Amino acid sequence: MIHHMPSFEKLVFELARLPGIGPKTAQRLAYHILKSPADYTEALSEAVRQLPEKVRQCPQCFTYTENLDLCHYCSNPERDDSVLCIVEEPGDISRIDSSGAFRGRYHVLHGAISPLDGVEPEDLTIEPLLKRIRMGLNDEAPAIKEVIFALDADLEGDTTVLYLAKILKEKGVKISRIAHGVPIGGDIDYIDNRTLGRALENRISL
Amino acid sequence: MIHHMPSFEKLVFELARLPGIGPKTAQRLAYHILKSPADYTEALSEAVRQLPEKVRQCPQCFTYTENLDLCHYCSNPERDDSVLCIVEEPGDISRIDSSGAFRGRYHVLHGAISPLDGVEPEDLTIEPLLKRIRMGLNDEAPAIKEVIFALDADLEGDTTVLYLAKILKEKGVKISRIAHGVPIGGDIDYIDNRTLGRALENRISL
Repeated sequence: MIHHMPSFEKLVFELARLPGIGPKTAQRLAYHILKSPADYTEALSEAVRQLPEKVRQCPQCFTYTENLDLCHYCSNPERDDSVLCIVEEPGDISRIDSSGAFRGRYHVLHGAISPLDGVEPEDLTIEPLLKRIRMGLNDEAPAIKEVIFALDADLEGDTTVLYLAKILKEKGVKISRIAHGVPIGGDIDYIDNRTLGRALENRISL
Repeated sequence: MIHHMPSFEKLVFELARLPGIGPKTAQRLAYHILKSPADYTEALSEAVRQLPEKVRQCPQCFTYTENLDLCHYCSNPERDDSVLCIVEEPGDISRIDSSGAFRGRYHVLHGAISPLDGVEPEDLTIEPLLKRIRMGLNDEAPAIKEVIFALDADLEGDTTVLYLAKILKEKGVKISRIAHGVPIGGDIDYIDNRTLGRALENRISL
């Protein structure tokens, strides 16, 4: 679709680079932005511009934070220092935390091991993770007694869990992985075979 | 979902104001923007910011243009001045034009009459449209002989066509409306009843 408007086409192009936004959606969004009052355009542009300026990675758990030092989760003195939950992405933390079932500390790997995509252990925050666990075990800081993996239930997640479990077992840390199975309220009819297989493997004796 | 990051939440909020973008999608987009290199963030922010500065409405047909005077379509001397295609939104023009079936002039109403939504004829570009047709008929400029309505096939589009047809008929202009019916390649099994009804009503004798 040709619009004969370079600025408009530039915006369509930039929007279409976002995940899940095709050229048609990008065009629809651009027309909406064009029809919006100037204060919305200004607010959206400014919100995008300031994001990388304001957000950094927490030096301890590597989640995104706007705090100058430790993030919201690492700086909270009421959380349990002895349990560490390992996640792939910063967004996973708020999802797990809002379940209310975990009040320990977090560690963000920023991905998962995937040789096919060229993601090696060195590309993740594994080195600082091991340092963190070692520090906890040797120093005055409360020891990390348990590591819970909350990684995606795919090949990359599985590979990463296996890789880290091997290292952590040698260090005598208790490790576990969140359960994968039929969702609460889920109809067995609609659950895929792999999930159902996992739910059967991991059945809990009553 | 609480992120404890005001700048991040601000961007999620602004993105979620776009049509078809819910809070979850907005969050996914914001995380993507956060992971993107700085030059993308800068390009996107700048593309949004400059849009309302660069784009204005064509003083003749009211489509969006970045030209200083008449738009790409109005300033083209090779287009047919005697046929005028009336559309609701600027985006409709590029769709119709890329069909290659129309080489006349356009006029953008910027909406359709909708008393329920408070859109009255005065809110649309009807006054300048009538002036444009009158000028064509009286002055030296080539007369507008035919007006084609390419409005949406909904209640608002129908109302607008009826309203304008009444006025234009009095002025002796030939008026027509694009055909609504079964799309080319469309399977009759999958066409909704209203479209099929319209296709039967407007059947073409062979």
